[in-house]
Amino acid sequence: MIEKIREELKSKLSEKRFAHTVGVAETAVKLAEAFGGDTKKVYIAGLLHDMAKELTLEEMNNLTQDVEIDSYMRTSKALLHGAAGAVLAKQTFDVDDEIYNAIFYHTTGRENMTLTEKIIFVSDMAEPSRNFKGIEKLREIMLSDLDDAVITAADLTLSYLIENRKNIYPLTVISRNYIIKEKNSGNSIESVVK
Amino acid sequence: MIEKIREELKSKLSEKRFAHTVGVAETAVKLAEAFGGDTKKVYIAGLLHDMAKELTLEEMNNLTQDVEIDSYMRTSKALLHGAAGAVLAKQTFDVDDEIYNAIFYHTTGRENMTLTEKIIFVSDMAEPSRNFKGIEKLREIMLSDLDDAVITAADLTLSYLIENRKNIYPLTVISRNYIIKEKNSGNSIESVVK
Repeated sequence: MIEKIREELKSKLSEKRFAHTVGVAETAVKLAEAFGGDTKKVYIAGLLHDMAKELTLEEMNNLTQDVEIDSYMRTSKALLHGAAGAVLAKQTFDVDDEIYNAIFYHTTGRENMTLTEKIIFVSDMAEPSRNFKGIEKLREIMLSDLDDAVITAADLTLSYLIENRKNIYPLTVISRNYIIKEKNSGNSIESVVK
Repeated sequence: MIEKIREELKSKLSEKRFAHTVGVAETAVKLAEAFGGDTKKVYIAGLLHDMAKELTLEEMNNLTQDVEIDSYMRTSKALLHGAAGAVLAKQTFDVDDEIYNAIFYHTTGRENMTLTEKIIFVSDMAEPSRNFKGIEKLREIMLSDLDDAVITAADLTLSYLIENRKNIYPLTVISRNYIIKEKNSGNSIESVVK
């Protein structure tokens, strides 16, 4: 299945997006190894997470017409490609719910994320071809404290949106609040190889 | 009425809080003069905005028991004192809806704020006794572009909460998104004295 997915993506995505996709999949495997995740599952989710990213907004809305999505998300390719990618991955490769949700929430996060969801959320920000202010800190901590990495990744996104006066999707804030509260209560996901 | 309010607050609030209160009222008058607001109304709202701030959480919850407030806000004095202050100001001085709402939303903001609400929101952050990173920028712009000042004040709060890994109340983000959208659509409140 993995070879089939790689071929499909290589033929459909731009070269840059394909490189990002492989970077996310490979970073996700490292995180799964560190935190006891399912390496095969996160590799597939990593490969597929952006499979809808190069579609038009109309195509994304068509794919997700049976999914409950708020009106703001329906106007934003940057947000909607997660949900559209999840639906497309299900249609094309019959992925399971865990992979579906990791793709669906990879940009926004959500409350009470699974290990696979957290791994894809962080890998998407930290994979080797990415470069932005603060990424070194994220790469430093991600292999020892995954929850810290999720919070850091969300906060780097929020800081970017604040600096550039762009819309902040409330779910990103709600996900971040949730995981900070979870971490403060002592239920943090820390490396199994420590 | 203003003398009665000042006396009541001077006897009830700590010295530091009273100084902040007068600072907010006086800053609000300057903003009202710049943007065509009601100087008397904003002075009263400024004086009263923190009148519940030194109550206990239980007292704040008792005051607001008939008001619809989410469960998170009910656990936070930093958030709930606005709603509690609005109810207390209404009970004690029979303030009108405009002043009530300016007190109610002075910490969180909300979508589609009135001129009085915006003035109190900004004055609370910018009054002379305040000191935090970024305050100079806020003071520089507030007399020429009130919406820019509201966004800047919200973003300074958000940046502080991010830096300190504190909970972000989603309404603050929603208010900020709304006013950025409003400003980008050209309905900005700019100084009448320009």
